[in-house]
Amino acid sequence: MLNVHSPLDMHVHLRQGDMLNLVAPYTARDFAAAVVMPNLTPPVTSLAQVLDYRQAILRAVGESFTPLMTLFFRAYSRAELLEARPHIIGVKLYPAGMTTNSEDGPADMDEARATLAIMEELGIPLLVHGEGCGFVMDREALFLPVVEDWARSFPRLRIVLEHVTTRAGVELLDRFDNLFATITLHHLLITLDDVLGGLMRPHLFCKPVAKRPEDRDALRRAALNHPKAFFGSDTAPHPLEAKEASGCAAGIFSAPVALPALAGLFEELGALDRLQAFVSDRACAAYGLTPIPRQVRLERRAWIVPERIGCVTPYLAGQTLAWQVAG
Amino acid sequence: MLNVHSPLDMHVHLRQGDMLNLVAPYTARDFAAAVVMPNLTPPVTSLAQVLDYRQAILRAVGESFTPLMTLFFRAYSRAELLEARPHIIGVKLYPAGMTTNSEDGPADMDEARATLAIMEELGIPLLVHGEGCGFVMDREALFLPVVEDWARSFPRLRIVLEHVTTRAGVELLDRFDNLFATITLHHLLITLDDVLGGLMRPHLFCKPVAKRPEDRDALRRAALNHPKAFFGSDTAPHPLEAKEASGCAAGIFSAPVALPALAGLFEELGALDRLQAFVSDRACAAYGLTPIPRQVRLERRAWIVPERIGCVTPYLAGQTLAWQVAG
Repeated sequence: MLNVHSPLDMHVHLRQGDMLNLVAPYTARDFAAAVVMPNLTPPVTSLAQVLDYRQAILRAVGESFTPLMTLFFRAYSRAELLEARPHIIGVKLYPAGMTTNSEDGPADMDEARATLAIMEELGIPLLVHGEGCGFVMDREALFLPVVEDWARSFPRLRIVLEHVTTRAGVELLDRFDNLFATITLHHLLITLDDVLGGLMRPHLFCKPVAKRPEDRDALRRAALNHPKAFFGSDTAPHPLEAKEASGCAAGIFSAPVALPALAGLFEELGALDRLQAFVSDRACAAYGLTPIPRQVRLERRAWIVPERIGCVTPYLAGQTLAWQVAG
Repeated sequence: MLNVHSPLDMHVHLRQGDMLNLVAPYTARDFAAAVVMPNLTPPVTSLAQVLDYRQAILRAVGESFTPLMTLFFRAYSRAELLEARPHIIGVKLYPAGMTTNSEDGPADMDEARATLAIMEELGIPLLVHGEGCGFVMDREALFLPVVEDWARSFPRLRIVLEHVTTRAGVELLDRFDNLFATITLHHLLITLDDVLGGLMRPHLFCKPVAKRPEDRDALRRAALNHPKAFFGSDTAPHPLEAKEASGCAAGIFSAPVALPALAGLFEELGALDRLQAFVSDRACAAYGLTPIPRQVRLERRAWIVPERIGCVTPYLAGQTLAWQVAG
């Protein structure tokens, strides 16, 4: 038995419409709060959209869960950000074309600076999908100089390098006090070998793509030990027909298994006592959040992950997990 | 208009049964002869199987096409290889577990030496799937020391590094006179970016996986210029349901587009005059083959590659090619 206080998933895609209603309850069941990404169609670029989306989420899951809302990065005025500030946890920046529904993001990173300066002044964190243009295995590394530049230019801007996947990305955390990172469950478990080293596995395809074994090792060390690395699942459901297709969409639906699988991994690594820090405490410290008075209880009782949840194949489908969330 | 004399595809998977009947005519239509890989179920490990398979191929395509048969590598006696020699062009070695139906290959490369010594004595070439165990992007590089060792230990054994995918593999050709390589069409065209840099593309998934841009550049230079690099498509059809699936099989069905797409690429590279060397002359020199008195005529007339050929999605499906084989 293991109690997790105020478990937080600091990076989720809850989608819209029927998909929202299908998937959001899994995040709400296991987490007290979650950072909700704004890459909808159309993207969430106004306070009105933030509030509408928040309402839709609460209708889907009830009031016991706290959606921590984000704006989709564009050039915002100071007045816009000042008005939005009480309702958002940060602004999410997607370089154009890097992942699902990111076409509206900035293509030129220098254009972002004026808005970043306002965010720094107002104390609004930047959440960034840290990939640049180039060969797929190099994209995170190619973007790190941009992160460095921003971290140096805006020293009071908190920057979260979302779903970090490389050793180089992790190492950057030590160079800038204002830089943080989320780490997904799947990047702690898989490498590119799992994606296409045997058969090719569409349900393990995500952006950024899983990297090399030495990168995964660095992520595991950071998840266990780094005070500025915390959990963000990047749970990103797609219907089966968008995965097992001639063009497979990027995203892994990990919400239903995230906490149990993390408990299993941390146990395997002899670090179950550090799960609380990874899934809550460090994120609270990074964002200055007050822990939410909600406790989730994990039991060491085996279960088999279902093959399908509605139209979506969940991460680890068909596999047996040692831990489960107590009902 | 472009005439290719004795076009040869030095690496094809013609499969068995209905699939053989579906796909072999495309190879036979465009090539005078082709090297037929032996990784069937069960693998082709006896002269009787070689002769049976050859008959099945000729029944499927008629006598105007020459199947150049191979044995699946195992420990063979001198008597076995001596008897098989007039009926085969070489012996194909698959390290265990590296690709489709390769489970019966050797796991320990030192075990292969006795048979390699017999092959050297008898003048039977070794065709090798050059991948070792390790991270998927490193597997070819990991196997190159084995190739070097064999090339040095058996200086009269002709070794063909099949479907070479890396710059390091190409560079090895210059170090050993007895080392040759085949290059596929798709490895001349795609990198890992095409496989999963945008959406993930099961119909571009093959083993060895496509590598980095600098590797593709090295392959292109070799295809144009290297006297010991020649064409082997590695055409490897799978039914649609084995590709757009939760576990996608490795293989690209390129036979229907191989010659036209190569003509397009060589034209684009300003090297149409070197196509003849790549698709025939260098292979004849490597294997000591007499060119087959058959000419295939390519016309510069656009066509659209069909989306489906029977149950198989061909390479470049739906794309417009500038060249076609004259009927």
